[in-house]
Amino acid sequence: MNNHIVKSYDDEQRVLLDELIRMGQMSVSQLEAALDVVERRDDKAAERVIGNDEAIDALEQQVNHDVIRLIRRGPLAGDLRVILAALRVASDIERIGDLAANIAKRSMALNLAPPLPHTRGLDALGRMAARQVRDVLDAYVARDGEAALRVRASDAELDTLYTGLFRELLTYMMEDARAITPCTHLLFMAKNLERIGDHATNIAENVWFLIHGEELMPPRDKRDDTNSVVV
Amino acid sequence: MNNHIVKSYDDEQRVLLDELIRMGQMSVSQLEAALDVVERRDDKAAERVIGNDEAIDALEQQVNHDVIRLIRRGPLAGDLRVILAALRVASDIERIGDLAANIAKRSMALNLAPPLPHTRGLDALGRMAARQVRDVLDAYVARDGEAALRVRASDAELDTLYTGLFRELLTYMMEDARAITPCTHLLFMAKNLERIGDHATNIAENVWFLIHGEELMPPRDKRDDTNSVVV
Repeated sequence: MNNHIVKSYDDEQRVLLDELIRMGQMSVSQLEAALDVVERRDDKAAERVIGNDEAIDALEQQVNHDVIRLIRRGPLAGDLRVILAALRVASDIERIGDLAANIAKRSMALNLAPPLPHTRGLDALGRMAARQVRDVLDAYVARDGEAALRVRASDAELDTLYTGLFRELLTYMMEDARAITPCTHLLFMAKNLERIGDHATNIAENVWFLIHGEELMPPRDKRDDTNSVVV
Repeated sequence: MNNHIVKSYDDEQRVLLDELIRMGQMSVSQLEAALDVVERRDDKAAERVIGNDEAIDALEQQVNHDVIRLIRRGPLAGDLRVILAALRVASDIERIGDLAANIAKRSMALNLAPPLPHTRGLDALGRMAARQVRDVLDAYVARDGEAALRVRASDAELDTLYTGLFRELLTYMMEDARAITPCTHLLFMAKNLERIGDHATNIAENVWFLIHGEELMPPRDKRDDTNSVVV
């Protein structure tokens, strides 16, 4: 659209940021919709969430396209940072969208079994992950490095909640063999939420890069411990 | 090193490709080492694999740094494609390295329980994933779009093997509650291998992008079905 009108460099950068913001909002909506779908056991709504993921993928394609156009115009050093950060943030948002859609998809497998009481923990984890994504996107738009650091620091809480849920689900599986299949889906859904937290952390690191260039972020606490869980 | 010597643009591009090749080789070695570690139940070797992941991360940092330098020199359109593909391929290789290290990490949890007969399927899946990565890296270096298409097409086989292993592990868990914790780790290890296949596919798409620009790859078969598995 409007390819025949030559936009100014600043206008093109503005368009890029708008696309990123839109992508980010869509990914948070998709995540929240996926969590609702799990609670409500609503297959129709799950299918809608799965279908909506395409729009995020299409926006990422658009961002990639616009990034190439911008780089071809020969950006200054600071602008180049903005552009490369946009490229990476778009890729993380796209993955968040994928993971949200996957949660919706797995909810349909959950709905083939009787309702489980174990989806509460998943919901709490999901709400925390959604807040992380929302906060880091705000930090990105505001170019607020301190807020980005806070999001990254909160990832440890998300990991703790995830590890607790992981252990809890394993014990349910041991108590009742019929819970094994649905709880396995819940384990993977929980893992998706933990990964969404990692993508929020990646975005936080890109906010830092935007402001400070290649200078490293201060060190932080380590991530999830479920790799070594034995119940 | 040698920062005081101004390299030619072509030399810098060559350095970038060498770094990518080195990263790629390291990620395949790490994956193969992780698979050996699972078979041999060797915690010491697992720790080495985990520790080696840092070197891949450091190389990705170097690639990112070199990409910024190259873009600042004002690349031509074709070169820009090479540079952006390098950026994305480096990110996929880095994730392959992470996933391999995570397999090594989980093997240590497996080693706390008696040996399971179920690691054979994992090994077969892992060897196939390693071959995918090796083949796609060869296609990348040779800029062979047809070879990249073949790697992407083979991802469906990897997914089929993964789905079979997923179902198999669920049945073991149902038969014996003591198998639940180790089999859960095996499920996540298998998922890591399936994800490595996805990263190989991403690299294949970047080989295509290198040759054909933003033109889309031909459509292909869909991915793993474990999202809806009910046993």
